[in-house]
Amino acid sequence: MIYPVIMAGGTGTRLWPLSRRSFPKQALELVGGRTLIQHAIDRLLPDFAAEHIFIITRQEHVPPLSAQVPELPAENFIVEPEGRGTASAVGLAAIHLHHRDPQATMAVLTADHYITDTSRFRQALRAADDIAQENYLVTLGIKPTFPSTGFGYIQQGEPLPINIDMSAYRAQRFIEKPELTAAQSMFKSGEYSWNSGMFIWRIEQILTEFERQMPNLYQKLQAVESILDQPNYKQELSQIWPTVNKETIDYGIMENAKDVAVIPVDIGWSDVGSWASLLDVLPADDQGNIVIGDHIGIDTQDTLIVGGKRLITSIGLSDLVIVDTEDALLICSKDREQDVRAMVGLLEKHGRGDLL
Amino acid sequence: MIYPVIMAGGTGTRLWPLSRRSFPKQALELVGGRTLIQHAIDRLLPDFAAEHIFIITRQEHVPPLSAQVPELPAENFIVEPEGRGTASAVGLAAIHLHHRDPQATMAVLTADHYITDTSRFRQALRAADDIAQENYLVTLGIKPTFPSTGFGYIQQGEPLPINIDMSAYRAQRFIEKPELTAAQSMFKSGEYSWNSGMFIWRIEQILTEFERQMPNLYQKLQAVESILDQPNYKQELSQIWPTVNKETIDYGIMENAKDVAVIPVDIGWSDVGSWASLLDVLPADDQGNIVIGDHIGIDTQDTLIVGGKRLITSIGLSDLVIVDTEDALLICSKDREQDVRAMVGLLEKHGRGDLL
Repeated sequence: MIYPVIMAGGTGTRLWPLSRRSFPKQALELVGGRTLIQHAIDRLLPDFAAEHIFIITRQEHVPPLSAQVPELPAENFIVEPEGRGTASAVGLAAIHLHHRDPQATMAVLTADHYITDTSRFRQALRAADDIAQENYLVTLGIKPTFPSTGFGYIQQGEPLPINIDMSAYRAQRFIEKPELTAAQSMFKSGEYSWNSGMFIWRIEQILTEFERQMPNLYQKLQAVESILDQPNYKQELSQIWPTVNKETIDYGIMENAKDVAVIPVDIGWSDVGSWASLLDVLPADDQGNIVIGDHIGIDTQDTLIVGGKRLITSIGLSDLVIVDTEDALLICSKDREQDVRAMVGLLEKHGRGDLL
Repeated sequence: MIYPVIMAGGTGTRLWPLSRRSFPKQALELVGGRTLIQHAIDRLLPDFAAEHIFIITRQEHVPPLSAQVPELPAENFIVEPEGRGTASAVGLAAIHLHHRDPQATMAVLTADHYITDTSRFRQALRAADDIAQENYLVTLGIKPTFPSTGFGYIQQGEPLPINIDMSAYRAQRFIEKPELTAAQSMFKSGEYSWNSGMFIWRIEQILTEFERQMPNLYQKLQAVESILDQPNYKQELSQIWPTVNKETIDYGIMENAKDVAVIPVDIGWSDVGSWASLLDVLPADDQGNIVIGDHIGIDTQDTLIVGGKRLITSIGLSDLVIVDTEDALLICSKDREQDVRAMVGLLEKHGRGDLL
């Protein structure tokens, strides 16, 4: 039995000012009239029962998210007292699932990606499950469409036997976000996939890896499992959690895991973690503009406009990102959108945390 | 006795979205903590009593303007039922003054210009009055600082005798807003001034010119004067006024007037009729930005930012005009700011008149 666990702990700094601490990016309706968390659930529902789908997030994000996916049982929200990196988030979800079904397969999925070929996506999950039964930690790799420096890469090793019309490989090496020249040569070679952050494994297998590679975290997870059914669970967890080291699942587990497989998938995958990424996902008009909201323009090209209640007018612009909200406006050159995170830092520094 | 009459009938389309039909540009606080109409009054008050200063405007602009210049008696607001061009506005003010003091000198002044050397400005008015007593129609010309295609020009002819340290000339020719090449050659020659729209003349002299050059308008002005003291004046005026032809004072009177003088003045004059013009008036920070309101920027240069309540953030921008209001936002390339007027037209066409 596969249990999808959707990682939804981030606030989405790079989608400021639309995403806020109290209103994370997963709750934003950016594509196709549904929010990102709704899309993440929608693409599973044809094959997965809602009661088998879990969301791991922070307490403050439970209200906006649960309001948007009422089909999910309340107990399927796994709450981290605070963010301690993806390794501990995965670990916490794993012990919850282990407690429920020790034989479970866990699919770690994301809410900040958009997938157009959702049927192929579900097919890939089933293929990954097959390989996971051989005690592999399986990752879904994304076939690169350009030499991105914004994603990690996975090098494909020897082919693995697989039952369906997809290829699977032993994962040779995990590479963190590369410099441009390295990205270019990996892109060119055809031997690398982007690391999508989607993983499929048997619960027992990932817990074995936690025990081997992150014994300290593993010990704490064991302690958490022992109190899962107790009335003071939440309180106890909030005592334990701050003592957990922050670590990513890639660095903490995947890079040195024993048997790792990668299935490069072609599922119309796009990151929607930043404003520029939306330019790849949303349909542009014949001027190359993508407009959400109320806009009237004169000679405006290749610009992303995300409006609120206000009318946005533009004259003689190109290659900008304009995001207008009730209390904050962002105007950003398209090639500088990686600096939205820096802007959020600057606001923090200027004592404008109320706008974050 | 000089009676200043401040022309304040325009709404200031080019300052949209800050200026609105119901809130004209004269009421905007753009420079130095005072609104444009307040500046227009302030620069007169050292030499002129408030009861001798008149404002000609439209009915709907009286409330915002009178609230800002409470020192002006209510009866000093001359109200046009509707805008019929500057010739008729000047004519209407002229017959009001004529009725009050047939020997008056009238100074037609503007509210959409900013003047730094206000003492020199008042000195120029007195010099102009001297020449006006010789039955000249006197214009204050502005020494061009660049080959502008946005202003009309006045060619200087033979020098006229003048008592103070300013020069006065017979005005040889009025030139409408020129093409760039013509502007360049006029700028180079040094024989031309910009037409500031500030005129000084004896009331009797300008009425004589109305009678000679615009007999139809003159006749209607006579009719208006005959009912000035009557209780139904306002009602009658609103019957007469729509029948008046729209004409500018330049085309209708100045270009073919008999004796016209120009005094080129150096008074730190700036047009503040458009967003770009503010760039000349307001002090820029060390990045070349001019900011009114709440702004935090990363790598933002040479940009005019006029904010409202909202925080405006910008990343990697240059040479833009950003104007944010409660219900409409304008983002405009600096070199396209002449198209703000076209945007207003477009909004009208799109049925968005509520935002104008």
